[in-house]
Amino acid sequence: MFNSAESVERLVNWLARLPGIGRKTATRLAFHILKLPAEEALELADIIRDVKEKVSFCSVCCNISETDPCHTCTDPKRRKDIICVVEEPMDAAALDKVDEFNGLFHVLGGRLSPLDGIGPDDLKIKELLARLNDKISEVIIATNPQVEGEATATYLARLIKPMGIKVTRIARGLPVGADLEYADSVTLTRALEGRQEF
Amino acid sequence: MFNSAESVERLVNWLARLPGIGRKTATRLAFHILKLPAEEALELADIIRDVKEKVSFCSVCCNISETDPCHTCTDPKRRKDIICVVEEPMDAAALDKVDEFNGLFHVLGGRLSPLDGIGPDDLKIKELLARLNDKISEVIIATNPQVEGEATATYLARLIKPMGIKVTRIARGLPVGADLEYADSVTLTRALEGRQEF
Repeated sequence: MFNSAESVERLVNWLARLPGIGRKTATRLAFHILKLPAEEALELADIIRDVKEKVSFCSVCCNISETDPCHTCTDPKRRKDIICVVEEPMDAAALDKVDEFNGLFHVLGGRLSPLDGIGPDDLKIKELLARLNDKISEVIIATNPQVEGEATATYLARLIKPMGIKVTRIARGLPVGADLEYADSVTLTRALEGRQEF
Repeated sequence: MFNSAESVERLVNWLARLPGIGRKTATRLAFHILKLPAEEALELADIIRDVKEKVSFCSVCCNISETDPCHTCTDPKRRKDIICVVEEPMDAAALDKVDEFNGLFHVLGGRLSPLDGIGPDDLKIKELLARLNDKISEVIIATNPQVEGEATATYLARLIKPMGIKVTRIARGLPVGADLEYADSVTLTRALEGRQEF
């Protein structure tokens, strides 16, 4: 395509492998990078090197971190008796923005998915169970409300409940701002099931 | 956001500055990069370094190139008597994929846009005029069929025609596969104006 600039072609090819980025978007991005001041473009090269060298996983909560244990696990302002279990680091980041929650996280690194060959041993479930002791008052299971996320939640609840720890599941219902008219029936069922008294 | 992994945060911030990439997409991309094997992620760092160090502009056609003059300008299989004038390197790349065209290119590096303060001196027009001699039989003006692209085309045609060189403009009309019903009236006008006999 760019027979005069092989490195641009390589950049386009690399970018086009990113999820949700097609060849045309990749080309547009490559030209944007090409037009950037050198130091700004090279900053990305440095950041990627940094990410790859510094970021690993917290041995406690299994979230991504540059320190071990991570800042969240060692933060003295957080409640240590509540653990919120999520699938991915992005989920923890999303929940962390909510003031409502001030406990700890546990990142499973995925969800049970027999079709993809992902079983309990492929997730950080052993690490979660190792954290549970009589100081933990509640485990909130915040896996995604999809078939596999629900199955993972049920599986975890069955493991943790016998230990005498309160296990809760985040509410599923209508998102704020939604239209009842357009909601699917499964969501409506969940919204009815989860109804609360005024 | 990722208080445990500052470099990931920096990566998200960098990616979110790219055109058409919002914060959510940037986060998704950053996590994808985080999950890539180290050598694949670091490849991007190398490519960007390469792009910034190797790629500059061909002194003849002003297209991006790692060599000077570029491969297109020195390709013995190309017709040297036809020059196709485009706005950006991406436009040249798009036209280069078409078998119909086998001539040379000239990249203006933009289009006349008085509102943005871009005048003739900001484009590679001097370089284009320097290439025109009696060996050139035709200049095809392939700037984008938008207001500013048309103005640039008219401007160039007025400069080149007096030199006795044939100047043509790419056809504007209905794109292949389009619906007459949904076409805008300017496009339909152009399609009628540009009609050809069977």
